[in-house]
Amino acid sequence: MYRLLYPMRTFLIVSGRDKETNIMAADWVTILSSEPFLVGVAISPKRHTWSLINKYKEFVVSVPRAKHVNDVWITGTKSGKNVDKKKLVSFTLVPSKSVKVPSIAEAIANLECKLVDARDYGDHTLFVGEVVAYTYDDTAFSKNIPNLEVGFLMHNAWNEFFKLGVKKLYRLKEE
Amino acid sequence: MYRLLYPMRTFLIVSGRDKETNIMAADWVTILSSEPFLVGVAISPKRHTWSLINKYKEFVVSVPRAKHVNDVWITGTKSGKNVDKKKLVSFTLVPSKSVKVPSIAEAIANLECKLVDARDYGDHTLFVGEVVAYTYDDTAFSKNIPNLEVGFLMHNAWNEFFKLGVKKLYRLKEE
Repeated sequence: MYRLLYPMRTFLIVSGRDKETNIMAADWVTILSSEPFLVGVAISPKRHTWSLINKYKEFVVSVPRAKHVNDVWITGTKSGKNVDKKKLVSFTLVPSKSVKVPSIAEAIANLECKLVDARDYGDHTLFVGEVVAYTYDDTAFSKNIPNLEVGFLMHNAWNEFFKLGVKKLYRLKEE
Repeated sequence: MYRLLYPMRTFLIVSGRDKETNIMAADWVTILSSEPFLVGVAISPKRHTWSLINKYKEFVVSVPRAKHVNDVWITGTKSGKNVDKKKLVSFTLVPSKSVKVPSIAEAIANLECKLVDARDYGDHTLFVGEVVAYTYDDTAFSKNIPNLEVGFLMHNAWNEFFKLGVKKLYRLKEE
């Protein structure tokens, strides 16, 4: 019944480097700390990404646009153990600033992470990364606030995704 | 720049019990494992909730409706150290099934958690809970798929929240 916490944002995890570079879709991503900026991502040991993060101790959390949903789906359903996923998708891999794992040119943002901890919880491993650098589309974030028109992608169920919309906006005032 | 991972879903964390019961809003929540069903929530040691979870080793992750945004805002901006937040909000606290921390009657879902791990990451502590029981509005989830019309609440920036909408739905097929 983990769907009780859905819908969730969907992210891409880039791992490996050079020819070994692999991309997978992941929903189970959160912020763990603001200063230092740490993110956590839970990944199954069955995933090729799990092995690549353990090997290179680096990964990139990439924020995909809804219009790339088909590419996201491929990265989430194919295994990098069997196919070279980067040849199946339309993403352009570009050098990152501070890690050897590449970033995705078409992404809304790329968060470059150095692994600082890995801990097994149940059937997944939580990889904790310190965000050592990042790049982003500056039309997507203004004064640190996401532009909700940019086309964020969310995941509702196995094969059901959607482009995030706003039904009603609330701006609150502290009393 | 942690806003690069926003917008995020907003949840409520219920902690303590009886008169000590406290509710806080939290975005930094994720699933960590499906079997067993484990969730993680990152909470600052400055928060009253942090002390209550450490004391009682239980908490409830509650999924609020967008229409309760004002109550969510109160739980996110007031501290349970100074005020009895449950008296400031319109939520009805009801007994949980398997923990002594109450659930919220008006919530879309309540996930009852027993603490299985706590680990400091930067300026927050990740509390890991095993979901030992749950309750939910059965119009909100059908065959394990969220009903996107139910009015999920999302958080975009400090005082900016919104009711989740769907701009475009994608249903994909595995090749």
